[in-house]
Amino acid sequence: DFMAALQEVPPAFGVSETELKQCVQNQVIPFAPHIEQILADGKLYVDQVRQSSRTPLVSVLLHGPAGSGKTALAATMAMESEFPFIKLISPETMVGLNETAKIAEINKVFNDSYKSPMSVIVIDSIERLLDWVPIGPRFSNAVLQALLVLLKRKPPKDRRLLILGTTTERSILEQMNMTDSFDSDIYVPTITNLEGVDIVLQQLELFTNQERERTLSILADSGADKRLAIGIKKLLMVIEMARQDADKIEKFVNTILALT
Amino acid sequence: DFMAALQEVPPAFGVSETELKQCVQNQVIPFAPHIEQILADGKLYVDQVRQSSRTPLVSVLLHGPAGSGKTALAATMAMESEFPFIKLISPETMVGLNETAKIAEINKVFNDSYKSPMSVIVIDSIERLLDWVPIGPRFSNAVLQALLVLLKRKPPKDRRLLILGTTTERSILEQMNMTDSFDSDIYVPTITNLEGVDIVLQQLELFTNQERERTLSILADSGADKRLAIGIKKLLMVIEMARQDADKIEKFVNTILALT
Amino acid sequence: DFMAALQEVPPAFGVSETELKQCVQNQVIPFAPHIEQILADGKLYVDQVRQSSRTPLVSVLLHGPAGSGKTALAATMAMESEFPFIKLISPETMVGLNETAKIAEINKVFNDSYKSPMSVIVIDSIERLLDWVPIGPRFSNAVLQALLVLLKRKPPKDRRLLILGTTTERSILEQMNMTDSFDSDIYVPTITNLEGVDIVLQQLELFTNQERERTLSILADSGADKRLAIGIKKLLMVIEMARQDADKIEKFVNTILALT
Amino acid sequence: DFMAALQEVPPAFGVSETELKQCVQNQVIPFAPHIEQILADGKLYVDQVRQSSRTPLVSVLLHGPAGSGKTALAATMAMESEFPFIKLISPETMVGLNETAKIAEINKVFNDSYKSPMSVIVIDSIERLLDWVPIGPRFSNAVLQALLVLLKRKPPKDRRLLILGTTTERSILEQMNMTDSFDSDIYVPTITNLEGVDIVLQQLELFTNQERERTLSILADSGADKRLAIGIKKLLMVIEMARQDADKIEKFVNTILALT
Amino acid sequence: DFMAALQEVPPAFGVSETELKQCVQNQVIPFAPHIEQILADGKLYVDQVRQSSRTPLVSVLLHGPAGSGKTALAATMAMESEFPFIKLISPETMVGLNETAKIAEINKVFNDSYKSPMSVIVIDSIERLLDWVPIGPRFSNAVLQALLVLLKRKPPKDRRLLILGTTTERSILEQMNMTDSFDSDIYVPTITNLEGVDIVLQQLELFTNQERERTLSILADSGADKRLAIGIKKLLMVIEMARQDADKIEKFVNTILALT
Amino acid sequence: DFMAALQEVPPAFGVSETELKQCVQNQVIPFAPHIEQILADGKLYVDQVRQSSRTPLVSVLLHGPAGSGKTALAATMAMESEFPFIKLISPETMVGLNETAKIAEINKVFNDSYKSPMSVIVIDSIERLLDWVPIGPRFSNAVLQALLVLLKRKPPKDRRLLILGTTTERSILEQMNMTDSFDSDIYVPTITNLEGVDIVLQQLELFTNQERERTLSILADSGADKRLAIGIKKLLMVIEMARQDADKIEKFVNTILALT
Ligand SMILES: Nc1ncnc2c1ncn2[C@@H]1O[C@H](COP(=O)(O)OP(=O)(O)OP(=O)(O)O)[C@@H](O)[C@H]1O
Ligand SMILES: Nc1ncnc2c1ncn2[C@@H]1O[C@H](COP(=O)(O)OP(=O)(O)OP(=O)(O)O)[C@@H](O)[C@H]1O
Ligand SMILES: Nc1ncnc2c1ncn2[C@@H]1O[C@H](COP(=O)(O)OP(=O)(O)OP(=O)(O)O)[C@@H](O)[C@H]1O
Ligand SMILES: Nc1ncnc2c1ncn2[C@@H]1O[C@H](COP(=O)(O)OP(=O)(O)OP(=O)(O)O)[C@@H](O)[C@H]1O
Ligand SMILES: Nc1ncnc2c1ncn2[C@@H]1O[C@H](COP(=O)(O)OP(=O)(O)OP(=O)(O)O)[C@@H](O)[C@H]1O
Ligand SMILES: Nc1ncnc2c1ncn2[C@@H]1O[C@H](COP(=O)(O)OP(=O)(O)OP(=O)(O)O)[C@@H](O)[C@H]1O
Ligand SMILES: [Mg+2]
Ligand SMILES: [Mg+2]
Ligand SMILES: [Mg+2]
Ligand SMILES: [Mg+2]
Ligand SMILES: [Mg+2]
Ligand SMILES: [Mg+2]
Repeated sequence: DFMAALQEVPPAFGVSETELKQCVQNQVIPFAPHIEQILADGKLYVDQVRQSSRTPLVSVLLHGPAGSGKTALAATMAMESEFPFIKLISPETMVGLNETAKIAEINKVFNDSYKSPMSVIVIDSIERLLDWVPIGPRFSNAVLQALLVLLKRKPPKDRRLLILGTTTERSILEQMNMTDSFDSDIYVPTITNLEGVDIVLQQLELFTNQERERTLSILADSGADKRLAIGIKKLLMVIEMARQDADKIEKFVNTILALT
Repeated sequence: DFMAALQEVPPAFGVSETELKQCVQNQVIPFAPHIEQILADGKLYVDQVRQSSRTPLVSVLLHGPAGSGKTALAATMAMESEFPFIKLISPETMVGLNETAKIAEINKVFNDSYKSPMSVIVIDSIERLLDWVPIGPRFSNAVLQALLVLLKRKPPKDRRLLILGTTTERSILEQMNMTDSFDSDIYVPTITNLEGVDIVLQQLELFTNQERERTLSILADSGADKRLAIGIKKLLMVIEMARQDADKIEKFVNTILALT
Repeated sequence: DFMAALQEVPPAFGVSETELKQCVQNQVIPFAPHIEQILADGKLYVDQVRQSSRTPLVSVLLHGPAGSGKTALAATMAMESEFPFIKLISPETMVGLNETAKIAEINKVFNDSYKSPMSVIVIDSIERLLDWVPIGPRFSNAVLQALLVLLKRKPPKDRRLLILGTTTERSILEQMNMTDSFDSDIYVPTITNLEGVDIVLQQLELFTNQERERTLSILADSGADKRLAIGIKKLLMVIEMARQDADKIEKFVNTILALT
Repeated sequence: DFMAALQEVPPAFGVSETELKQCVQNQVIPFAPHIEQILADGKLYVDQVRQSSRTPLVSVLLHGPAGSGKTALAATMAMESEFPFIKLISPETMVGLNETAKIAEINKVFNDSYKSPMSVIVIDSIERLLDWVPIGPRFSNAVLQALLVLLKRKPPKDRRLLILGTTTERSILEQMNMTDSFDSDIYVPTITNLEGVDIVLQQLELFTNQERERTLSILADSGADKRLAIGIKKLLMVIEMARQDADKIEKFVNTILALT
Repeated sequence: DFMAALQEVPPAFGVSETELKQCVQNQVIPFAPHIEQILADGKLYVDQVRQSSRTPLVSVLLHGPAGSGKTALAATMAMESEFPFIKLISPETMVGLNETAKIAEINKVFNDSYKSPMSVIVIDSIERLLDWVPIGPRFSNAVLQALLVLLKRKPPKDRRLLILGTTTERSILEQMNMTDSFDSDIYVPTITNLEGVDIVLQQLELFTNQERERTLSILADSGADKRLAIGIKKLLMVIEMARQDADKIEKFVNTILALT
Repeated sequence: DFMAALQEVPPAFGVSETELKQCVQNQVIPFAPHIEQILADGKLYVDQVRQSSRTPLVSVLLHGPAGSGKTALAATMAMESEFPFIKLISPETMVGLNETAKIAEINKVFNDSYKSPMSVIVIDSIERLLDWVPIGPRFSNAVLQALLVLLKRKPPKDRRLLILGTTTERSILEQMNMTDSFDSDIYVPTITNLEGVDIVLQQLELFTNQERERTLSILADSGADKRLAIGIKKLLMVIEMARQDADKIEKFVNTILALT
């Protein structure tokens, strides 16, 4: 039965730990309340897969602007499930593969997952897996069709699977009828206020406290607060660029303002 | 002759029982009168194939919104025919096959069916078999053409065949001249009133009777009754998600209302 | 010389009798005067090929709505010619062949025909041989080009050939410049009055005389006579469906009315 | 030198006599003055190739409506040149060849021609060699490009070549910049008056003199003279069809009137 | 060093003399002052390549209407350079090659040129090398991209290269961003006045002096002078055609007038 | 650790010195202040990669009009980094490679770079690597997708990478969502005033001082100053062309004026 099957599989089986950890290289900084809410939602889906035999397959789409932290959050949810099988499907390991090889690799991850009683598969940057480009538009219909089927293909008896997808192109996936294939979705926003920037600056220790306060008050004075919408990934890059500069405050402020 | 030929084939020959049963994993709940009507119609087509030598080939298309239960109903009709050959053609077993391999597999099922005096073939999710995507639009014309021919190709002498197709994209199939190739079609609707929801809730035992009544009255008060149109498949998922939540009623009601 | 050559070939050479007979499975019921006129015209073309040395190649296109009986009539004409070589080119035997293989097979039939002094080739469902679909539109230009050439390629000295094509898509073939390549064409209409239906009903013995008369008078009363346009193939299917029903008259009448 | 080279090649070398003769199966009937003018022009081009060392390559395009006699006239010109190398490039021998094989075959004919001091190449039905279809439009750009180059590629020293092309689609070739590659062109019209029909009828002996006169006067009375535009090829077919009919005059007149 | 390297290569190395000579089969007749100006410009580019070590790569595009003499002029410039490596890249030697083979051949010419201290490469009829056709439009992007790179790829140290391109489709090359890749361009016009025609007629000796004068005065009287725009290549063809005719003057005048 | 790893790799490992040097064949002439500013910015990015462990991957796009000096500047930045691994990815070494081979080569450079603790990769002429052409438009989506992934794929632990891209088609890359994948970008402008021209003329020693002054005053008088926008690469070509001419000043002035 199910609990017995669970024991047979060594916990470490099929976990892409290294890859998943690298997705969260710069930690998950709780710069806004929604970050914790997202991780809590993730836990609910993990529980549903673990407990409801009527829904052995649950799929969730994390979507939001570029660099908002989607991959880091999906990887975190996956690792926290502690399921015996946790795998990352990512375009980064598929550079130069043709459609057929890509689909074979994706399909293999799903088939492998059926060997474990409970599994999580993270499908990262779906638009990139699909070779999406807005000129045309062009994309790999073969990969799309494979994903459309795999997102709905139930695992065999006594096997359960949680699928976490990420994308910056939700509206495109909608045009492709892919969003219908996900059971649920989660929006991952950018940082839109200076409190968020402040928390990240503290964590990264770019400035002394005094410098930081000056920096934030300059930004506030120039109205950045109102138009701010910066991904956590970009903010980390801007901080590290500023760190090289003779005048860190000026560099940081100018770069942030140029982005708003 | 025909009755003799019927005896020669062992009843279990060529039946995809496991796959078909998995299509009806959560039973067929009679949440509305049309469910039984659909199954009765199915029996009539089965009878026609069994009895009329003038129409050795009969094809029926089940169509309707996503998750309305098309696959489960087609699988049920097929299994209830008790014909010696019952097969499922599904995109789920064809992930990563190219057009040629797909067509070969589909064609093989038809040719295999000719070995049995009476057969049912379920062609599930035709739009997915066709690799249909609305952007472009794109689809596999080779698979389409194969299906258009197979839907009309009469079985050899003394062989009879019932074809049950399913699709969410009837209007697309119409543009492709495919609906003309079906002899008949059956519409499978979503659940559009709270009585249907009530029957399903009872069956799934999410709530106590009291909770269920409160839930339904909240939904009725918020006017959900008028705009409701939820597939049985989605309703089952919503029920299982709610089951994980601390406040099951709130979760259930909110999710349903978000869908109307 | 020609008459000598005629003797050398055994009459049964190259005749696809089984396939052609299956095309006329349900006989040719003379439900209207045009049926006999069409068959008489067919005989004239057969005679021309047999007798005029100036026109060793004659091609005729049978066109009309879906299910109007084109294939059955072309097959009948072909079989009645009693030429030593009579072949059917049909999409039904080419499922899954690629363009090259299809063209090779078609070309082979033509080359084989040159071995007989007189031949008939039926090219059935040309739009399907061309993989035609209105979305796009898409079709196999390679098959089209092969047909365009073969329709005009004269057989070698002392060889004669009658080509009978069928299609539901005459206007498409016109856009492809294919109708110009046929020397003549024949329109095959649907049944458009209740007399035709009556003749077919008598032949098929669905009803007692009394039932039949009642049925027809109901149809006449509801004005079906004026809007009727049903292919013989569909009418046969409707009759067989009605045959399964408890109330045959009601089923028959309702289905016919739903089609008008 | 040139005259010496001319002797070395046996006159029959590389002449596709059978194929060319078959193109003129029904003779060239001088139904109008332009027929002789066209053949005289053909002789001038043949002379130019034979005599002018400055223009070792001359190319002429015969164009006009379907069935107007282009192929028969080009074949006649070619055969009358009595050059040692006369070849027909025709879609009829290339059914089912892919682009590469087609181009190889075409190119080979040109390379072979260089072995003869003087050559004629007839390129028949250029639009068909190009796999032209107006839907799309689609055509083989590879074959087109090969022809564009070959039409202008000078033969090697002391070699001369006359190219005769035929097409029904002059305006398409113009859009493809192909007409520019021909040095000259000749228009081949249909029969547009009853005198032409009369001459052909006499030659074909369909009617007695009396019948013929009656036929023509009926046609004249119904105003056919004014709207007539029938290709010689079609006229021959109509005559042979009428020959089978009980009432030859009626059949002939009706068919001709249906075409005007 | 450079001068030493120059000695090592035998002067005849890599010169496509035969092909280049054939491009100027009918000499370069100085029918207008611009002809000599173009050849003088050509010498300047040859000198620059020979002398400036800062610009080891110089590319020039000769463009103008069909038959205006572009290829003959480019070939003349190339041969007059007397560089040790002079090669012609022409569509005429590439009939039937696929894109890959074409590019390999083109690339090889460039790589071969690097073995000589100084080289000229003539790239003839670029639009034809690109398989350009205005319907679509279609062309070989692979060949285009190869040319775009090769036109700018500097030869290795101590190697120098002059590239002479020809085309009738300058505006198309502009749309393809190819004109930007040429360092300079030269316009080659048609003959636009009767003086030019006169010079050519004298050279070709079609007429006696008296005939020629009459011919030109007829042309002048009919206003041909104002609308004249004939390529030298076409003019030569017209002269040779007229030479075959009984009435040479009439034929010549009529053909010229038909072209204006 | 990181510093240890740095020692293990011989400094010359993987440096494409010859190719990079050839990109700066004509030096970097400081004809305007922005030249030095660009090189200083380049140093900052090099420092960031060397020092910040949070941003092991930094990518910068140099963009600007044709011939403005992008490649020379990127090559200079790369060489000045003195990182152990410095590689040039250029379309010039990939002529005739198909998409797959191109991607394999590009991917290999990235994988090779991971063997060095610190690396610079210059991706030159990205629009050309993508086989971009505005007609269509057409481009290699496969190469695009590979670059999109590689631009964001983090090097493994303890490895750092600076990517310098160049393009003339920034707006196209923007439509392809590629600019989002670069962390920063640098605009490289043309020469837009006569001071810049003067500096370059002095460096190239085309004129005596007196000639140069006269030249510049002629240009100033004709208002060239206001409309000037010439790439340094073109200016160098114009100078070398003028050097061949009898009247260098006239040639130089005329060519420059023709470009404004
Ligand atoms: N609260 C947070 N949420 C997500 N990521 C965070 C957070 N705090 C810090 N990070 C860091 O920010 C980075 C987020 O990058 P990530 O690749 O996850 O973004 P993304 O949205 O997937 O980007 P892309 O749109 O490019 O795919 C990671 O390095 C992560 O460690
Ligand atoms: N009355 C019913 N009719 C159909 N299915 C039912 C019914 N009651 C319960 N079910 C269950 O609901 C689910 C219906 O899902 P099914 O896959 O058949 O829907 P579908 O319409 O084919 O979906 P899709 O549009 O995604 O193909 C099955 O698990 C089935 O057991
Ligand atoms: N008068 C008739 N003419 C033609 N077919 C008839 C006639 N009477 C009965 N039939 C029967 O009707 C059927 C006609 O079907 P058939 O396949 O020939 O139609 P079709 O027009 O070719 O259809 P489709 O458009 O699908 O190709 C055959 O089974 C034939 O035996
Ligand atoms: N004056 C004539 N000119 C040409 N053909 C003639 C003439 N008189 C009789 N014929 C006969 O008419 C037929 C003309 O057919 P042909 O194939 O040459 O026409 P076509 O214009 O090439 O047709 P298509 O447009 O189909 O290629 C031949 O059989 C030829 O023998
Ligand atoms: N002044 C001239 N300039 C160029 N060609 C001349 C001149 N005088 C005579 N000729 C002859 O004219 C012909 C010009 O043909 P050429 O093939 O060079 O033209 P083209 O412009 O390249 O034609 P196309 O546009 O077809 O490529 C050659 O045979 C050449 O010998
Ligand atoms: N200040 C400068 N900046 C850049 N290049 C310079 C400068 N001064 C002189 N040069 C020289 O100018 C040339 C610039 O050419 P380069 O190929 O770098 O331009 P590019 O912008 O990359 O051109 P393209 O748009 O064609 O790729 C090089 O030969 C370089 O040595
Ligand atoms: Mg991501
Ligand atoms: Mg389904
Ligand atoms: Mg048919
Ligand atoms: Mg012809
Ligand atoms: Mg030329
Ligand atoms: Mg560059």
